[in-house]
Amino acid sequence: MAKLDAAGFLIDLDGTVFRGQELIDGATEAIHTLQSLGKAVVFLSNRGNLSRAMCQKKLLGAGIRTDERSIVLSSSVTASFLKKHYPLSKVWVLGEKGLTDELALAGVTMAPKPQAADWLVISLHETVTYEDLNLAFQAASSGARIIATNRDRSFPNEGGHAMDVAGMIGAIEASAGVKTELVVGKPSWLMAEAACEALGLSPGECAIIGDSLESDIAMGRLYGMKSVLVLTGSAKLGETRLYEPDIVLDSMKDLTELAKGGILL
Amino acid sequence: MAKLDAAGFLIDLDGTVFRGQELIDGATEAIHTLQSLGKAVVFLSNRGNLSRAMCQKKLLGAGIRTDERSIVLSSSVTASFLKKHYPLSKVWVLGEKGLTDELALAGVTMAPKPQAADWLVISLHETVTYEDLNLAFQAASSGARIIATNRDRSFPNEGGHAMDVAGMIGAIEASAGVKTELVVGKPSWLMAEAACEALGLSPGECAIIGDSLESDIAMGRLYGMKSVLVLTGSAKLGETRLYEPDIVLDSMKDLTELAKGGILL
Repeated sequence: MAKLDAAGFLIDLDGTVFRGQELIDGATEAIHTLQSLGKAVVFLSNRGNLSRAMCQKKLLGAGIRTDERSIVLSSSVTASFLKKHYPLSKVWVLGEKGLTDELALAGVTMAPKPQAADWLVISLHETVTYEDLNLAFQAASSGARIIATNRDRSFPNEGGHAMDVAGMIGAIEASAGVKTELVVGKPSWLMAEAACEALGLSPGECAIIGDSLESDIAMGRLYGMKSVLVLTGSAKLGETRLYEPDIVLDSMKDLTELAKGGILL
Repeated sequence: MAKLDAAGFLIDLDGTVFRGQELIDGATEAIHTLQSLGKAVVFLSNRGNLSRAMCQKKLLGAGIRTDERSIVLSSSVTASFLKKHYPLSKVWVLGEKGLTDELALAGVTMAPKPQAADWLVISLHETVTYEDLNLAFQAASSGARIIATNRDRSFPNEGGHAMDVAGMIGAIEASAGVKTELVVGKPSWLMAEAACEALGLSPGECAIIGDSLESDIAMGRLYGMKSVLVLTGSAKLGETRLYEPDIVLDSMKDLTELAKGGILL
């Protein structure tokens, strides 16, 4: 097995560290191993409904200590992007508190009503109602441009898979007859650059560990990072792969054992 | 102005007779005029969230007396279609009581859980929640074929326009990565044939009155009915028209006046 010659690790959360609220066996130990080996670690997730503060708390609950600067979420990257490139824009949100927290933290201005929005930000909304969808429809119908935190179709949870933000986007696009302009989440350059910046490393010095071929492994291949696929989430063994990972592991647990044996790292 | 030489009239409801709960001025009188002239009248609507019984009650509240056999809804036509052509199928519903009432009335079997559904029936759901969407996503992801009562993008209401069933369809198609197989609502042959059967007339003997170029006027042109566009709903004066109506009226009110003057009918 090839050695993973990386100074920094980008670690996906859903399907890699967590499955829903549940911690995946061995994930905490693997992260401790990386940290004890002096590797820089950032956590990154396409979950746009969480803030970094929420995420930090969830990781702490799993025995993983980290600071907010080492957490890169599609919510926080969306907020930074809007503040940096569209500082005068007003936004309407179809999403949850974690996203609005990050937008507020970045200083993004909220539109007082959907019709006044320059941008509609769409994210996963696990308590969405018809009224929420309809207000977002009003924004999109009135000319708001659409930025989505991600476009994942489903996410793994305790019961199998659940509808992800693609459902929210699909509802708005199909009813308002518009298209999403920008998708922030992995495998985008926005997420790759934000993660590398947090690590202070170039992509070639990094490895990404994740369960999704379409987002994690794709991002690794597209930006020249090494990539490790774990089979605890969406990808299945023997699946056709558009992007080949460098290494496939059953789970994060294997990372610890291989590292201890001096085989992997 | 051309005379409307028709024995039977198909009258659209939303945007033609009603705007949300509100009755459009002159609609009741126009329908009474048609009835007093001995014209056969059916009411037809793409609203899949209503049952014929609900619709009959709503019409009665507006002073329009009719029987259930003279009401043709995408909900009731969907129910008849499934019962007739897929009598052994089990269905899961993303929709409201009006639709489940019609399915029960037709004797369609409900699936005990989404994963057991042969068909997923999608309709307008004005109180939809994430849980409803997610259960429908489970059905579609597990192989249920999709039939939609209609695919209207928006419907006129008191406040302007609101998200219609295209939003619900978009959410499921985009997240489950599937396509809708059959759309029942106007301008389909299913609705045209159900309306003509209710009238006991051939399409050439009928005229359709409606506010939508894409559903009402299209159906008239596609099946050889005469067509009357009213400007009280979605179509605007001067809009580019893929399907030309035979007659354009400001509202149903004009129908009464023209009929009284012997000009129109």
